[in-house]
Amino acid sequence: MSHDPGQGPESFPRTISATAHPSLAVAKYWGKQTGAINTAATPSVAITLGAIAARTTLTVDCASEGDQPCRDQVVLNGVSQDPRRFRPFFDAVREVITLNCPHQDGGSDQAGECLFFTVRSDNDFPTAAGLASSAAGFAALAASALTATLGERPPEEISRLARIGSGSACRSVYGGFTRWDAGAPAAEQLYPETWWPDLRVVVLPVSSAEKPLSSRDAMNRTRDTSPFYDAWVADAPSLAGETREAIAQRDLERLGQTARLSYLRMFSTMFAAAPPIMYWLPQSLEIIRGLEELRRMGLPVWETMDAGPQVKVITDAAHARQVAEEFRDLLVSPAIISEVGPGVTVGTASDRTVSGGDHA
Amino acid sequence: MSHDPGQGPESFPRTISATAHPSLAVAKYWGKQTGAINTAATPSVAITLGAIAARTTLTVDCASEGDQPCRDQVVLNGVSQDPRRFRPFFDAVREVITLNCPHQDGGSDQAGECLFFTVRSDNDFPTAAGLASSAAGFAALAASALTATLGERPPEEISRLARIGSGSACRSVYGGFTRWDAGAPAAEQLYPETWWPDLRVVVLPVSSAEKPLSSRDAMNRTRDTSPFYDAWVADAPSLAGETREAIAQRDLERLGQTARLSYLRMFSTMFAAAPPIMYWLPQSLEIIRGLEELRRMGLPVWETMDAGPQVKVITDAAHARQVAEEFRDLLVSPAIISEVGPGVTVGTASDRTVSGGDHA
Repeated sequence: MSHDPGQGPESFPRTISATAHPSLAVAKYWGKQTGAINTAATPSVAITLGAIAARTTLTVDCASEGDQPCRDQVVLNGVSQDPRRFRPFFDAVREVITLNCPHQDGGSDQAGECLFFTVRSDNDFPTAAGLASSAAGFAALAASALTATLGERPPEEISRLARIGSGSACRSVYGGFTRWDAGAPAAEQLYPETWWPDLRVVVLPVSSAEKPLSSRDAMNRTRDTSPFYDAWVADAPSLAGETREAIAQRDLERLGQTARLSYLRMFSTMFAAAPPIMYWLPQSLEIIRGLEELRRMGLPVWETMDAGPQVKVITDAAHARQVAEEFRDLLVSPAIISEVGPGVTVGTASDRTVSGGDHA
Repeated sequence: MSHDPGQGPESFPRTISATAHPSLAVAKYWGKQTGAINTAATPSVAITLGAIAARTTLTVDCASEGDQPCRDQVVLNGVSQDPRRFRPFFDAVREVITLNCPHQDGGSDQAGECLFFTVRSDNDFPTAAGLASSAAGFAALAASALTATLGERPPEEISRLARIGSGSACRSVYGGFTRWDAGAPAAEQLYPETWWPDLRVVVLPVSSAEKPLSSRDAMNRTRDTSPFYDAWVADAPSLAGETREAIAQRDLERLGQTARLSYLRMFSTMFAAAPPIMYWLPQSLEIIRGLEELRRMGLPVWETMDAGPQVKVITDAAHARQVAEEFRDLLVSPAIISEVGPGVTVGTASDRTVSGGDHA
């Protein structure tokens, strides 16, 4: 690592970059616990998708005398973001820094409070893919912010911080297969990306329209109005347990069937909300019914979906291409075929640190 | 009435016909209570659809010495039916007759036991319409069987008997607006067919394929495997109450919104079952999303669905034709536009008895 947190203010500004991959839940997170920022009401189990990534370049600098305390700036895929969206996250970063680097003179100044961040983040996958880009983005952001200020940190700390930005970002910190338990402050790795080389996820984007309702608003309405929400929360741990077992046994059929139960139960809680929340499009259902037909023909293909109309298919290396071809006419951008991917990486190509790449 | 139950066996065979209309639930019945034949786990509220009907001609005769006790025959839309499907129903008819007409000589022979039935029933609507034809059919069958043997009977008794054949048939006995409460042996009329002259239901058939799973099997799987079933049963009474209020106030928007909540919650219990039960087709969802768009434009259109892919739209007289036109390209048979219809009628055109047509 070229960055030494003990260098003092004269070493600013510092720039660092990070790359992270989306986390696709096969046992779904849907609903937050109250009383903490982005802790989950349900345990989730996810796969990190190697084929696509968010790349972040972060510059950290010391504020000058008289600066606004918070002049953080984020440009996402070329578009300046509302700083309020990022305020809780950067405040959490400043708090972590302060906790880890109390000011040397012991005064009331706090090390983190004088820092601000300038961030540029880009995804190499279309927003239409419906893959929580914020998950990969905040994982990369948390890794780069901590590394730039405190040097290399344990993945658990990066995961905990990423979670403040976006719940599922805490899983994107790790490669391979991850779990994030209900109420847990951070995710953990279950198995590294080498665990199941034959596994493939095929992402099928059927719409590029913006979501009618954000996941955050949809989760809140579901919790507040769906008569099925409590049963969903009560049922999720058993499904998550079955999903972990399916991954432990590399049992594709069991993984696929469990993933179907999980996403359909998640969507059922939304259909049952008042007013109902409906992300599915006719094309989504055409793929869902088409996959049913392929399964009847013996193909190992099972779908999952997230808060949006896109369909993601869990299959193996031998069938991924066929799935992509089968539904080509329904897609608004090309299918993405992904292997299981690595965790967040920090630094340039010549100065790269891998966090969370090991079997926990 | 030309049929006097006191005429004795020499008056057999007797033939009588009846006509009944489908019952479309706006607050859904989904799930049976255990311990009794076809009593509902949830209260339902329904509209009798006047535009379409099942017509039944029933002949009742005395069995000769040595006949099989049960040689009942049913031909439905020209197709001979499996007598086992009808056995519990005809046995219930015989039991009612026996209870009402104890044999005159006081011996062990029982009046109903020697009777058997030959039935021909035809629907004037395509099976593709996805309108429980069995509901209208069993309402007509119960009315004709009781009238042929016991003379005119109260609609409550016809409703109770129709229920043995098919749960929702107990509502089809009455015209207008009906309720069938959880655990109740019969339905009741809420308002007669004259209550809301402006109301229309547009039936949009999108598939003529047979259902992949019968309602009966789907209800059982839902009850046994859906983690949301108990919450559905617990929530349904409040929705049914709101639906009754909407009808009492002839409030179309409230009726429409409540009907949407009810069918979506019903389907959610099925999506959540293991394995998931999915009756929707892409075309169903195309109509559901299309109606959303029409509502945004200010049109009073709300959908409901039953165990199948067809969509039924609740609207008013001024917009029914437009709804039928809007989705014409998606339909496998013409849209059916229906007013609120009457209860079951018994007899020929020259000899007609109306049962259950009054405001209860």
